[in-house]
Formats: sequence, C-alpha cells, structure tokens
Amino acid sequence: MSTTGLDLKALRYLTYGLYILTAHDRGKRNGCIVNTVVQVASKPCLVSVSVSKKNLTHDFIKKTGFFAAQVLTKDVPLKLIGIFGFRSGRDYDKFDKVRFRDGVTGCPVVLEHTLASIEVEVEKAIDCSSHTVFIGEVVRAENLKKGEPLTYAYYHQVKGGKTGKNAPGYKASIAKDNSETEKGDKKMKKYVCSVCGYVYDPDKGDPDSGVKPGTPFEKLPDGWVCPVCGAAKAEFEPQD
Amino acid sequence: MSTTGLDLKALRYLTYGLYILTAHDRGKRNGCIVNTVVQVASKPCLVSVSVSKKNLTHDFIKKTGFFAAQVLTKDVPLKLIGIFGFRSGRDYDKFDKVRFRDGVTGCPVVLEHTLASIEVEVEKAIDCSSHTVFIGEVVRAENLKKGEPLTYAYYHQVKGGKTGKNAPGYKASIAKDNSETEKGDKKMKKYVCSVCGYVYDPDKGDPDSGVKPGTPFEKLPDGWVCPVCGAAKAEFEPQD
Repeated sequence: MSTTGLDLKALRYLTYGLYILTAHDRGKRNGCIVNTVVQVASKPCLVSVSVSKKNLTHDFIKKTGFFAAQVLTKDVPLKLIGIFGFRSGRDYDKFDKVRFRDGVTGCPVVLEHTLASIEVEVEKAIDCSSHTVFIGEVVRAENLKKGEPLTYAYYHQVKGGKTGKNAPGYKASIAKDNSETEKGDKKMKKYVCSVCGYVYDPDKGDPDSGVKPGTPFEKLPDGWVCPVCGAAKAEFEPQD
Repeated sequence: MSTTGLDLKALRYLTYGLYILTAHDRGKRNGCIVNTVVQVASKPCLVSVSVSKKNLTHDFIKKTGFFAAQVLTKDVPLKLIGIFGFRSGRDYDKFDKVRFRDGVTGCPVVLEHTLASIEVEVEKAIDCSSHTVFIGEVVRAENLKKGEPLTYAYYHQVKGGKTGKNAPGYKASIAKDNSETEKGDKKMKKYVCSVCGYVYDPDKGDPDSGVKPGTPFEKLPDGWVCPVCGAAKAEFEPQD
C-alpha cells in the first residue's frame, strides 16, 4: 500500500500524558520521559508503553522485565523533566538529585511531583523498528497525591517544553515549536540551549528558577542552568 | 509476583484522547469508540490501538488488517459518541446517520466533528486477554479541520460522558461518575438511561439537543432521545 498522503499534522492531534518511566539493572537505576503509557486491558490489568531502543531504560526493561511509570503533576518544574528527558543515564546518575524509593519490582518510584506510580511486570516485548512496545500486568498501582496530570499538549503549549529526540513524535513537534517562537517579541534576544533546544525567552523569564519576566539572557545569574536539561549558561546560543 | 496493592485510582491519572475507530468487511462498515490510539514509532510511522474482543470492529480489523482512527473535536455532540459507543454494529447500521467516505484502506472515514483521520495497515495483533492490541503502519493521515481534540478527561468531567462496558478503564470510571452525580442538586429528579448509564440532570438540561438547563425530565419532548446512545425517553429510570 502506498505511503503517500501522510500529513503528520494529523498525528499531532493524538492525546498523550507525560510520564517518567523507570527501570533498574543490578543496582543501577535509570529513567526517561515517555508519552505512550496506556491501559490496554482491565482483567487482568495490562499496561503498555513504547520506548526508544536508544534509551538505556529500554535496555534495563528488556533485561529485567519490569518498569514503573510515574504520572507527573501539571505543575512539575521543567527541570525534573530535563533530568530524565534530555540526558543519557549512561554518563549521568539521574537519581542523584531526585527523591525516590525502590518499588516492589525494584524499579525506582519517583516521589517528586508524582501523582501516581504504576509498576508493571512485562509479558510481551513487541519489536517496532526504532522502538519496543512493552506490555505487561500491573503488579502495583499507587496514588501518591491528588492533582491534575500533566498532558503532552500542556507541556508543549503552556510550559514551552521540548520533545526528546527519541520520542515517536519528535520531528513534527520541533517544527511546530520553531514556528511558534518566530511569532515572539524580538526586542530582547532569545537564546537556544544547544543540548535540548529549549528557548530562553526574556519576555517570559524562567519563573520555575526564580527569574522574572523581562530579564535579558545577559542578566541571568552565572549559576543559572537550562530549566529543561540542566545545561550551563555557556551552552546557549543566540537564536537566529 | 503479588497483585495486592492495586489502587485503580492511580490508573485514572493516565491521559487519553477519544477516537472513533472504524473498519470494514465485505461491504459492511462498523466503528466503535476507543481511547487507546498511540503513535509508537516514527520511522516507519507506527500507530497502536487496543480494542475489546467483544466489539464487531475488532473482528473486522482482525479479518481485513486495516483500521482508521478519527480524532474527535472537543465540541462533538454526545450523540455522535452514543451512536458509535453504546450500540453494537451487529444489529444497527452505525453509518446510516453519519457523514463519511471510504478511505484508501476501505475503512470509513467519519467526516463529522473529526479533526483528523489516520488509516493504518495492521502488522501485528497482540493478544491481551479481553483485548487485542493492533500495531501497524500509517498509510494515510489527513487533517480534516483545525480545532482542539476531545480528551477522555474532558469527555468525563465536562461533558458528563459515560464509559462503554468494553473500555479498559470501565469499572474505575463508573465508580467515579457515581460519586460525582451524588453531589448534585436533588431538587429535581435525575433520570438514568438504562442502555448506556447517561444521567439526565434537570439542572444542566441537554443543550446539545436544545433542552435548556432547569427543564424537568417530565417536560422533555416525547421525541427527545438519550444524547449519548439514542435510546428513547421510555428507557430512562428515576435515579435512586
């Protein structure tokens, strides 16, 4: 069948949440950001997730057969997403600065800005070229606090978050983000994080880190880091 | 591994959209409502969906290897969801009263209140007890109009919609709906649709069908039907 007629905008209308997916392997813990956690059956209670084969978390899940999905609150700081979403656990301990405990599956349960944690024992690993879809039974589901869950749409539209390069919808979202930032006020220069693509907009500032709207990039304190991926100020470049 | 510690409230925090899933078989067309459409990979562009084995749409997809997912607009009338979500295509032609055209896969593309349509050629059918997860390549994706997509949360919280009995999250959602309706004003009697569980609340009326808030059930016109499933007024019972 022909694959012409693929308007990728159509796929952007699919609705997702945003989750920290965690796993472990021989005392090591890791986690990444995913948007693809879905309950696919109720008796037994089965949950699926699609994970890029490039993620270390993917390899841990494949090896141990367990994962935990954490549902984030709507008011999660971008920094927490940055820790899990834009760095590799191969050269960085993502759990060094995050509150967690080990769950019944051995997977770390993130306790910061988390509404719920769902631990799953994998039954099937489906090869989907760049990704693997893991399907398994929920062995523990916990409500950690009440609140509104972060959606993928809210993350992009309101929080200005970026899409990790291993996410299924990567290309489409980046294109959209670029067109949006072009509309902004150009009086003060915007700066782009070369690590994750986050754009510092002086008109918006960085309220999560205590930087008020109207602060030019040059006036940011030296210790300020990218709120998404934690990169230093020196990693930023002026936006064209 | 023990399955104690399953707090189903945790699973309610997962975010979904709401879609009309369609399929065909030897000239017959059918469709149902699902919340589980996900893009699981980008190269090639793969989409997955979980469908109850009880749905006729499931059998059509299994047989022909094609499905189409329609993304609904936020302002879709409950009636359209009712046509697809609460009746079986085994004894009812769901496309009799709906605008559509046949897509490149042969699956009907619903043209009413649809933002986008995604047609998929199934590559894998994963048995998940009560459900099958179909994964396949997108062969056509179309943007039909601009707008905001309907989310599962909005459908339940704002539109007062019910969950079909074949949905993965059926039990949890019904329990929530019951507790919510108990909080309502009890001056005028509420009536429950015995077919789909929709509750007619006189304080809210049924604006989609032109019934103003403050209209008691008894004053509804004789031709009024359940806005969710299309059942007649006689199918309603007073709520306890």
